[in-house]
Amino acid sequence: MKKLINNPNNVLEDMLKGIVYAHKEHLRKIDGFDVLVRKNSPVEGKVALVSGGGSGHEPAHGGYIGEGMLDGAVCGSVFTSPTPDQVFEGIKAVDGGDGVLLIIKNYSGDIMNFEMAKDMADMEGIKVEAVVVNDDVAVEDSLYTAGRRGIAGTVFVHKIAGAKAEKGASLEEVKKTAEKVIKNVRSMGMALTSCIVPEAGKANFTLAEDEVEIGMGIHGEPGTHREKISTADEITEQLVNRILEDMPVAKNEEVAVMINGLSGTPLMELYIINKKVQEMLEERGIKSYKTFVGEFMTSLEMAGCSVTLLKLDEELKELLDAKADTPALKVF
Amino acid sequence: MKKLINNPNNVLEDMLKGIVYAHKEHLRKIDGFDVLVRKNSPVEGKVALVSGGGSGHEPAHGGYIGEGMLDGAVCGSVFTSPTPDQVFEGIKAVDGGDGVLLIIKNYSGDIMNFEMAKDMADMEGIKVEAVVVNDDVAVEDSLYTAGRRGIAGTVFVHKIAGAKAEKGASLEEVKKTAEKVIKNVRSMGMALTSCIVPEAGKANFTLAEDEVEIGMGIHGEPGTHREKISTADEITEQLVNRILEDMPVAKNEEVAVMINGLSGTPLMELYIINKKVQEMLEERGIKSYKTFVGEFMTSLEMAGCSVTLLKLDEELKELLDAKADTPALKVF
Repeated sequence: MKKLINNPNNVLEDMLKGIVYAHKEHLRKIDGFDVLVRKNSPVEGKVALVSGGGSGHEPAHGGYIGEGMLDGAVCGSVFTSPTPDQVFEGIKAVDGGDGVLLIIKNYSGDIMNFEMAKDMADMEGIKVEAVVVNDDVAVEDSLYTAGRRGIAGTVFVHKIAGAKAEKGASLEEVKKTAEKVIKNVRSMGMALTSCIVPEAGKANFTLAEDEVEIGMGIHGEPGTHREKISTADEITEQLVNRILEDMPVAKNEEVAVMINGLSGTPLMELYIINKKVQEMLEERGIKSYKTFVGEFMTSLEMAGCSVTLLKLDEELKELLDAKADTPALKVF
Repeated sequence: MKKLINNPNNVLEDMLKGIVYAHKEHLRKIDGFDVLVRKNSPVEGKVALVSGGGSGHEPAHGGYIGEGMLDGAVCGSVFTSPTPDQVFEGIKAVDGGDGVLLIIKNYSGDIMNFEMAKDMADMEGIKVEAVVVNDDVAVEDSLYTAGRRGIAGTVFVHKIAGAKAEKGASLEEVKKTAEKVIKNVRSMGMALTSCIVPEAGKANFTLAEDEVEIGMGIHGEPGTHREKISTADEITEQLVNRILEDMPVAKNEEVAVMINGLSGTPLMELYIINKKVQEMLEERGIKSYKTFVGEFMTSLEMAGCSVTLLKLDEELKELLDAKADTPALKVF
């Protein structure tokens, strides 16, 4: 294991310190808990958004805290759901009286622990609603998931629901908008290499030197199949075709595109993937409204990428374009 | 070689298409040349800034095109200087009549080719000045460099000189500010793994499974030494101590910090490095004014990082904080 860490058991603690040092204009940590919240939390007069999950997906989710996106991010150990009491602390810290929306990626542990925290908050009279993101079209049911996994499409839920909340919408309205995003977003990923959970110290799977896995999850969960590495264009075709089979997009409809790097893959290659995605959209007469290329939902040092398409309407476009000011994503 | 590419000889062409598709709000490509310029170039009433060099360092430099930073980026093949005629095209495309500042990283090929382009522009009556960034304190003279190499500190030159130009300063004033940044910025990097130039198809050096190289350059040029991997804290101490030996920073002086990932190293580890950098600054009473953690100047898929410190005065702080709107860096 070759990593820039200190004690493998302290990676979360050390990382959170590093995040707070870097982004003290945006966020603060709750003492005694692995929870990051907006610096000025609770913000009165708006619904608060809380997300989170296991760590190792940075900048998700702490990097999306700030104006126009999240109010809180609850950070579990690497690839491990945060406990209900951690989530509950997050809810309490950000609730400004207008209620809290939990944005949960569809992993069984996250669902269970966020739902328990919701019950704890209910008992204290805090209004809490939850949405579950399940954008990964690769496989039904997986290592840690019943149904489909939630992956990079979650960032569009943060962005758009965050903008809706910032405009003063009610908890029910913010939830409805988040659900609209979830209904219209699909992703699929692939991996070139494995990653190493620091506490484990070794890769949890291996791929041969000429092999890739299509549809792999962000914790190394199995995808649809393994194959010999082909070209970027051929791999991209597989991902985009599968997304469009699952969610047809008609000619002249508009989409937002996210080309997400899992971490080990350089930006150069993500742009090469983007070229093919955009060519495929053009061939089909689908309009690419806005494109995001970078690392938004990573998997430790794994090499690979995912492609996300979000079908847009006028409301979603306006909210996607609304100002956001967070460490990882700024929009004017 | 396991990369998401098509033909290894077309990576630059494919990448540039992907960049233009993603960032058409910010930039356009000059037909027939590997040159990216601001969408609305030439911008009248301001000095234009051009940088560039070999590709493989994305988001440098195309990602820094936009309001408050660069006007043009000339993109050579991977790790290969762009030719003088490419640079000359960039200069012509962005000059709005107030002259052009070239920001060159200190590599012999870049210096030679940018200087030749400057001569070509001089002959056409375009006012051109140049600055050379040499922030890497690791080694004097290196594989491709006489003197010190230019690495991630270059991004601070883009940001601050870009803000100065945006305010309407003259070519001489913008150059003077760029030189002030260069005088006050120092970096040092280290690598955990090698990287593969696509056209070569294999790693140009290897590091053992428990070995790191301290002071390595962004093209895999040798650093100061190799050693067994230690902790993130110990590695960070080496980098920061060497920077501060070279450029003493007094108690109560202010610095900007950049923790730059070379690409293969996840954000989690960069934040862990940042924790130690900030602790070291605190111990010395040095004030950390602003911190950037992410991938700003990469080396294909190399794992590793660099640390950059920039000593600030009131002018530099104001220019660092000024609005920038580019694909890779946005500042309000």
